[in-house]
Amino acid sequence: MMKRKVRMGMVGGGQDAFIGTVHRMAAALDGEIELVCGAFSSSESKSKASGAALYLSPDRVYVSFEEMINKERALPKDVRMDFVSIVTPNYLHAKPAILALENGFHVLCEKPLSLSSSEAEALRDKVKHSGLLFGLMHNYTGYPMVKEARSIVNSGRIGPVRKVIAEYMQGWLAARIEESGQKQADWRTDPDKAGISCCVGDIGTHAENLAEYITGLKISELSADVSTFVKGRKLDDDASVLLRFENGAKGVLFSSQIAIGEENELKIRIYGEMGSLEWLQSEPNSLLVKMNGAPVQVYRTGVDKSYLSKAALRETRLPGGHPEGYIESLANIYREFSRAIQGSQEGRKDEFDFPDIEDGVRGMRFIEAVIESGRKNAQWVKL
Amino acid sequence: MMKRKVRMGMVGGGQDAFIGTVHRMAAALDGEIELVCGAFSSSESKSKASGAALYLSPDRVYVSFEEMINKERALPKDVRMDFVSIVTPNYLHAKPAILALENGFHVLCEKPLSLSSSEAEALRDKVKHSGLLFGLMHNYTGYPMVKEARSIVNSGRIGPVRKVIAEYMQGWLAARIEESGQKQADWRTDPDKAGISCCVGDIGTHAENLAEYITGLKISELSADVSTFVKGRKLDDDASVLLRFENGAKGVLFSSQIAIGEENELKIRIYGEMGSLEWLQSEPNSLLVKMNGAPVQVYRTGVDKSYLSKAALRETRLPGGHPEGYIESLANIYREFSRAIQGSQEGRKDEFDFPDIEDGVRGMRFIEAVIESGRKNAQWVKL
Amino acid sequence: MMKRKVRMGMVGGGQDAFIGTVHRMAAALDGEIELVCGAFSSSESKSKASGAALYLSPDRVYVSFEEMINKERALPKDVRMDFVSIVTPNYLHAKPAILALENGFHVLCEKPLSLSSSEAEALRDKVKHSGLLFGLMHNYTGYPMVKEARSIVNSGRIGPVRKVIAEYMQGWLAARIEESGQKQADWRTDPDKAGISCCVGDIGTHAENLAEYITGLKISELSADVSTFVKGRKLDDDASVLLRFENGAKGVLFSSQIAIGEENELKIRIYGEMGSLEWLQSEPNSLLVKMNGAPVQVYRTGVDKSYLSKAALRETRLPGGHPEGYIESLANIYREFSRAIQGSQEGRKDEFDFPDIEDGVRGMRFIEAVIESGRKNAQWVKL
Amino acid sequence: MMKRKVRMGMVGGGQDAFIGTVHRMAAALDGEIELVCGAFSSSESKSKASGAALYLSPDRVYVSFEEMINKERALPKDVRMDFVSIVTPNYLHAKPAILALENGFHVLCEKPLSLSSSEAEALRDKVKHSGLLFGLMHNYTGYPMVKEARSIVNSGRIGPVRKVIAEYMQGWLAARIEESGQKQADWRTDPDKAGISCCVGDIGTHAENLAEYITGLKISELSADVSTFVKGRKLDDDASVLLRFENGAKGVLFSSQIAIGEENELKIRIYGEMGSLEWLQSEPNSLLVKMNGAPVQVYRTGVDKSYLSKAALRETRLPGGHPEGYIESLANIYREFSRAIQGSQEGRKDEFDFPDIEDGVRGMRFIEAVIESGRKNAQWVKL
Repeated sequence: MMKRKVRMGMVGGGQDAFIGTVHRMAAALDGEIELVCGAFSSSESKSKASGAALYLSPDRVYVSFEEMINKERALPKDVRMDFVSIVTPNYLHAKPAILALENGFHVLCEKPLSLSSSEAEALRDKVKHSGLLFGLMHNYTGYPMVKEARSIVNSGRIGPVRKVIAEYMQGWLAARIEESGQKQADWRTDPDKAGISCCVGDIGTHAENLAEYITGLKISELSADVSTFVKGRKLDDDASVLLRFENGAKGVLFSSQIAIGEENELKIRIYGEMGSLEWLQSEPNSLLVKMNGAPVQVYRTGVDKSYLSKAALRETRLPGGHPEGYIESLANIYREFSRAIQGSQEGRKDEFDFPDIEDGVRGMRFIEAVIESGRKNAQWVKL
Repeated sequence: MMKRKVRMGMVGGGQDAFIGTVHRMAAALDGEIELVCGAFSSSESKSKASGAALYLSPDRVYVSFEEMINKERALPKDVRMDFVSIVTPNYLHAKPAILALENGFHVLCEKPLSLSSSEAEALRDKVKHSGLLFGLMHNYTGYPMVKEARSIVNSGRIGPVRKVIAEYMQGWLAARIEESGQKQADWRTDPDKAGISCCVGDIGTHAENLAEYITGLKISELSADVSTFVKGRKLDDDASVLLRFENGAKGVLFSSQIAIGEENELKIRIYGEMGSLEWLQSEPNSLLVKMNGAPVQVYRTGVDKSYLSKAALRETRLPGGHPEGYIESLANIYREFSRAIQGSQEGRKDEFDFPDIEDGVRGMRFIEAVIESGRKNAQWVKL
Repeated sequence: MMKRKVRMGMVGGGQDAFIGTVHRMAAALDGEIELVCGAFSSSESKSKASGAALYLSPDRVYVSFEEMINKERALPKDVRMDFVSIVTPNYLHAKPAILALENGFHVLCEKPLSLSSSEAEALRDKVKHSGLLFGLMHNYTGYPMVKEARSIVNSGRIGPVRKVIAEYMQGWLAARIEESGQKQADWRTDPDKAGISCCVGDIGTHAENLAEYITGLKISELSADVSTFVKGRKLDDDASVLLRFENGAKGVLFSSQIAIGEENELKIRIYGEMGSLEWLQSEPNSLLVKMNGAPVQVYRTGVDKSYLSKAALRETRLPGGHPEGYIESLANIYREFSRAIQGSQEGRKDEFDFPDIEDGVRGMRFIEAVIESGRKNAQWVKL
Repeated sequence: MMKRKVRMGMVGGGQDAFIGTVHRMAAALDGEIELVCGAFSSSESKSKASGAALYLSPDRVYVSFEEMINKERALPKDVRMDFVSIVTPNYLHAKPAILALENGFHVLCEKPLSLSSSEAEALRDKVKHSGLLFGLMHNYTGYPMVKEARSIVNSGRIGPVRKVIAEYMQGWLAARIEESGQKQADWRTDPDKAGISCCVGDIGTHAENLAEYITGLKISELSADVSTFVKGRKLDDDASVLLRFENGAKGVLFSSQIAIGEENELKIRIYGEMGSLEWLQSEPNSLLVKMNGAPVQVYRTGVDKSYLSKAALRETRLPGGHPEGYIESLANIYREFSRAIQGSQEGRKDEFDFPDIEDGVRGMRFIEAVIESGRKNAQWVKL
């Protein structure tokens, strides 16, 4: 049988959406995934226009995820989509995911997973019973240098982890721009669409996921000071969190959307007994490796870097000095996920590396724990 | 008539090739171009295997560019490719380009344009007579911050340019790796395949193109010290060049492939009477703007940066802090080029911005002038 | 009357001491202060050898601060020292300071001020009643760019402060080097000499002082997770602290001595309603100024920088690009302090800018609050 | 005999002078040198006022270097100065140096050495015959990381040097500020005071000295494009130079004073057969070490850095992360020089490391060669 591209249907991501376009570019990058259909908007005209701009056949542009899932289900197996990519606001994650799973489609979903950890757990049950693949777009773990960091920690080279500093600083919500029709700000600050948190849910959870992914450690409890600095805003726009990990390591996690001048500064520092690591998303192709008593080493991405781990090289497309960026980080998740689909279709048991339903459940618990601690004046809350 | 993707056929870029894969990712990124056919290798089995891995229909995978162009020509207009993308080594640029133009196909070609300026000029004549589009992959001018730099110079904000420092430093050819089967090194150091120059042709010409593109000035004469540091190598691996521009500005251009530790360091500094600019390809999302007496300003890419020029915003896909990289720089050229094709098909007269045949001819003259000056012990040579 | 240098006597700082040498270089830098005597060590031979190496007259090299203060007191007014510089470990700050004040000598003292806040308050009373000058060596506030940051906040340009991130990371105590005779590590980890804290007292208090100095705000309460990561160590080597300021601003302060690869990374970020500031001690000549919607500006030290505040220019010795460093930061404190002495001698009422006894008392309260909160599992403690 | 400080007399450096103050701070830093006299200005009142501000005894403040040298000569040996520090504009270097040597005083002199290479050679003869010490203030070679770079090259670790890029970029003369009474600009652009060159003599020669010092190689010939960009200026303000070294290495050296936004950017890159080095004066405490195939290593100053060479540690005062700067670089030259004086007084044969008369002669030849090549349209000129 001839090999074919994996077929993707998209929920959300109509014209003007930010993240939907990014997902499509990421999915397209490696030429292994084909966008075949979409329910881009609940507005029929908008969904149709979006589909047309994407060169889709009009009969595969739908006005709701229900329509899409049902009609695709009815198509011949060699035509219909293989998986659904969900790029809607938070409140529209779980429902289409569940319906897709119930109808035999794999799911790749934006984070945070859902509106609550109970919703997340219900979805997890659904995933488990379906036997289908579920990927979560914690794209930052898709960067090669994040893989490298994880490999180094896992190898024991820096010894047991003692301290973690994870930060995610943005400044774009420093003023109340949600009042002036900025679409991205609007839904993120609306409890009905975003859930119980804006800042922690949108970016803090990336920092949490990154910290646990690289260290391989679980946060056991946390104490959080959660703030809403912009008057009239309904959800948090800043949080500072003390972390304790299961192995006794300590940590600090802070995220903000009112930090003027910070674009998208996701940074992590891991301090072990024998060495340390530092990675900054805005310069993603470098990883600082600091062994005790030795000069700092600057690890760099690049298919020509023989000192890199397999895990890092696997997510690297270019030689050193040819910067890879944000889109590639999503593309790595898409590639791992779509290859896992191919693998499952072919009965192979390869290991693929992408964030999954467990990351999603964990992220929801983290968000809830931070918000709870914040409400209790920074009391410790177990995770 | 329904809008459709622009259809691309590729010459070169078989499995194991570096730049062919990059071109395909770049072309795919925005979902506006479809790879429909290719002559990926002169080895039939390799070309076929490459095509299969790219999910192409076997009947549109060819073993030579002649076959591809002739057979595509015979296909119905609504099926056949719109343009040929040429990603072969230098000696295989002009021939497929000419044949494609003769058969009505637009051409996007890797740089340097050809093996000599006379060959380049012949190709230019062909382009002019054909009325077809010809794009040259000087991808670095596709970066948003390069567009911004050009806009700033053009606006007069930094005053007349006085001095230019353009450098392109690499270290990957510091040892004679062409002897051990490294494919990229092999053809670049082989006069039959690369032409009269390795270092200047491969990377020096990028620096030259960048300098002229940003400043809007032409180099009038140059004096070059050209070296081959690695024994036994047949072509240059290092060059240092003094530049004089038509307006009286001076410059220094140096490029090297033996600069150990330098990955792909293309950097340009432009000094005007009132201010200066600095851009470094390995941190492509920043542009330093230095006005006399004022603090240095760090301009940053991002669709949310209201201070950026239209030219820069047009080539930007993401908000600030979401790094865009090398692939996107090529994708910008591809997008400008494919939209120009759509424009020409629709009879529109929009302006599109991509390097063209004139850049190619100029690049060849530059390469020849540097090599000539080098042979004459750094005598001044007019461009 | 001819102008003369201000005369300094030193307590501590014998051979092998780190900070004493730094103090002497800083005091000497501007040629306005003369070292005239010292009690460099409680070992007579060591004190004598130290004095000789410093070209001091043997009769003004003493074996105890009591001897020094008493004998200098007995010298003619135009010969005896003007002030005492105290560079001993923490437990030897208050006693010599009190004796010096009682005998009419001004005092410049290393931080932290004392072993406890009650001792600090007693010393404060002594200072107030003496009418003499008391300076505290929080040298980091002596950097020009810290002055600039304070000026900018004070001017209102970045609006009310919302969030502060203050960090001070070191890695030199990652292993138990105090066991192998490292003198600097030895006393800092010894409760008898350092007091109740190692990490917070030694470096955390610098971060606290810097944060309050720049913002002009007081910390009202804090919640701290305090750790001793190195087994067998008696005092803390790491602390993470949530801060709340009197105006409602929030903050995070973390300091560590087990952060391998961090040399002496004191960094502060201040986020206001209209703009932000960032300063890093290891690149002290730059201050990042980030106004909403504008490119980041890199303010730089230099007597030629017309955009700098008077407060910053006053502490700057060189043109831009001639890096000033750590010693100069202490020299600025010394210069302000010695000029205040000259001013007081001449009856002038100029304003001089150096950390004083109030900073010392505040620092001790901070240290005690952090340690208390740490013991109470990060309960909030008022300052 | 009791050890005593080395006694310095200064020529030039009156109030308002830039470099004189820096010299005094540098000489004072380590407490090993005492300023005892000076001829600070040819204006008596200015010299006297300068001396008074420096707390000098009025009878040792002179109005000319002749007076100073003659009167100091007449003082008892245990009172008079040991050496003369010359910090005047270029045209006033050789005369006081010669007179000092003739009267038995060691000399430390600012660079460039003189107005011409013939004058330089005459001075060299004088030094040789005097048996006295002569130091030249090429302060940049005083930085620890420059010592480290030299040690690494000398150890053979990066293999034979192939390519050198040395640059020194400033922007302060981008406009004709010499017309508006800027004193530093005034004499540097005046052929009577500066000699045949402004830019090359003032800063280009630092880059040359640094390149030869680190590599241990001599420049054999050069080709230079020399420019005066500011209309009406009598001397050069920009130069671009191709270099050839005696071992076959090639180089590029460029210096400019019209490069707006560049403060004092002296940077050097050394590429060897096995590795490379990079050092930037504005971040002087780091040295990048790039070995083939390995991650870049960031060497850092600090008395706690066990991997550093003895030569680097010898010039380092502080632990890592406590930045040392420009003044310390001069202080290192002063300390080496004054210890050499002590050594010569004590009959010791220690080796001291400071730039000397040979560096001065070489620098003058370099300046003349660059200017000559510039006049001959960049013809090669032997050094």
